[in-house]
Amino acid sequence: MHDIGILGNERAGAEFVERTAQKRFAFSLVISYTETSEVPGITVAGEHPDLIKFTGPADAEFIHYGHCKSISVIPMTPDGKPTPALLTKTALEAASIPSVVINAGSKVPPKLPYIDMGLAHGRNISRENALSPEDARRAVEYGRIVGRFLGATTDCLVIGESIPGGTTTALGVLEGLGVKALVSSSMPENPVQLKAEIVRKAMSRMQSSDPFDIVAGLGDPMIPTVAGILSTASEITNVLLAGGTQMAAVLRFAKSIGYGGRNTAIGTTSYVAEDRTANLAEMVAEIFDIPILVARLRLGQSEIPGLRAYAEGFVKEGAGAGGASIACMLKAGIGAEKLLSLTEAEYKKIT
Amino acid sequence: MHDIGILGNERAGAEFVERTAQKRFAFSLVISYTETSEVPGITVAGEHPDLIKFTGPADAEFIHYGHCKSISVIPMTPDGKPTPALLTKTALEAASIPSVVINAGSKVPPKLPYIDMGLAHGRNISRENALSPEDARRAVEYGRIVGRFLGATTDCLVIGESIPGGTTTALGVLEGLGVKALVSSSMPENPVQLKAEIVRKAMSRMQSSDPFDIVAGLGDPMIPTVAGILSTASEITNVLLAGGTQMAAVLRFAKSIGYGGRNTAIGTTSYVAEDRTANLAEMVAEIFDIPILVARLRLGQSEIPGLRAYAEGFVKEGAGAGGASIACMLKAGIGAEKLLSLTEAEYKKIT
Repeated sequence: MHDIGILGNERAGAEFVERTAQKRFAFSLVISYTETSEVPGITVAGEHPDLIKFTGPADAEFIHYGHCKSISVIPMTPDGKPTPALLTKTALEAASIPSVVINAGSKVPPKLPYIDMGLAHGRNISRENALSPEDARRAVEYGRIVGRFLGATTDCLVIGESIPGGTTTALGVLEGLGVKALVSSSMPENPVQLKAEIVRKAMSRMQSSDPFDIVAGLGDPMIPTVAGILSTASEITNVLLAGGTQMAAVLRFAKSIGYGGRNTAIGTTSYVAEDRTANLAEMVAEIFDIPILVARLRLGQSEIPGLRAYAEGFVKEGAGAGGASIACMLKAGIGAEKLLSLTEAEYKKIT
Repeated sequence: MHDIGILGNERAGAEFVERTAQKRFAFSLVISYTETSEVPGITVAGEHPDLIKFTGPADAEFIHYGHCKSISVIPMTPDGKPTPALLTKTALEAASIPSVVINAGSKVPPKLPYIDMGLAHGRNISRENALSPEDARRAVEYGRIVGRFLGATTDCLVIGESIPGGTTTALGVLEGLGVKALVSSSMPENPVQLKAEIVRKAMSRMQSSDPFDIVAGLGDPMIPTVAGILSTASEITNVLLAGGTQMAAVLRFAKSIGYGGRNTAIGTTSYVAEDRTANLAEMVAEIFDIPILVARLRLGQSEIPGLRAYAEGFVKEGAGAGGASIACMLKAGIGAEKLLSLTEAEYKKIT
């Protein structure tokens, strides 16, 4: 396990690793949408505004089928930087980890079977509330039902997300709930000013400090959904929140509705953990004394420029790539070097 | 396990019991709809035609919440015969068996999170084809994906169904695929003539012997969905098909698309197994040499007339009640006497 680093509570991290090594894992990908992603300059996901809404479905389809059905190609920038779902698929397949898709307000449904949360997609928080009050409550209530089922069927539930523009809404929820946040970005020049400006506009509308009002006003459908799943699943099994700063927002919101931090770790890539424009470890420590497991991927050593780009500050994480990689290492003992060669092979298959 | 009887292949049945005793179980309820149920006299489910479409959602909601959300009361005849979902909920709760809902063409969506199969509801087979060719294929394809996930997360996957009018479409598929069938009914006076007449009309339209054409023409969305789930899940774990003659139709269709009968048993109530207007054991034996596990429930000993009615030929089975009861007995060692008293307590809670 020398390819898994631990930040934060090191003892709890080592125990998490010990409890889950060689055990059963299940992976869930929560796909969602926020119209905040349509603000120009906010996300690298989707080169064209009309394509952004296919990001989640395309990631889900790629992980399941090895190709996309809703669009003709897999999400990739014109210069060949692939979606992190490529890493996710490679890791899940290498370790035979079963996976399921959860649709929490995707703008278009994916072309595969999915758990439906009955949620509308999120609105642009710079202009209006993200969710209706009913949807914010339903996301948590349904999330709790899903968490009970998924938690009961595995020794470690990995929860990833795919929501373009999601770091901005994560920033909204973190700030709204009093956490000083610097959030990560899928671009090397993190549009910090733009994100802060959007959140400032959203905050100016808020009249309430009720956590449901805050997640409805400043957030997106993914955050209360994952918070609900986390709160029940962690009562019965281990939960690995696969993502970066967005999972910090999930933790903060979950804390405000009674979740206590039990049996939980964050799992992410070293590219997020080392992002100096963000402060993941500090933020998480402020919320809960839980560990961050870091997949020490070796994409910087790749012969493929599109994969090396991850080590140069592009994309960094998403679609649960870091958590899926950790799950693969823990379940099957597969190291980062082997994962890199499998990822390169997968990349060549699709290009 | 003296409250579990075995019909058919007794050795395989005893082995199934041995393999799964005290192991992990997961329960899935596939809800669906066929307009064939709107033919007057065909089903006891739903006293009024406008209410029939809520049968599946109400069963699913009752199992999860202990009350229904889509309608104000739990499905029950005016004289107090409750939905078999009452037995299902009691058994799952008693043994802490996690459960999930699969929406395979329900006419209205249930008010809880569910796995969506992206299927339209089934049409009235006496007038037109039940499914589009695309939906018949999608049901199997998506079912296979769901079966891989659910199968990988448990030692025994129990699959139940709730589709009013479903025994008539089961008869259609069985006859269409060459099985001499006598199917069971939710009413003591089984409307055999009416079912046969509907199937005869549907058969007269059939021009093809392709199994997908037959399930699309004579069946319902539940049958190809469960066949798909069964075909992949049974490759990796044990599968208990919870139901009566409808599961015989699933087996026959699954056989026609390459499934071989591995790791599978049917689980049902003694009230179906002993139904003389049906021939479950003979039908199953004709399809595969697999066991039928029979839950020897003791509803005939109940002080409550609505429960005693099950032993008098009403309702008999549904919503996976027989399979869920068997799962409860196998996982938790709870016997039929204890199950009866728990069921009576549950009945009193809701009335």
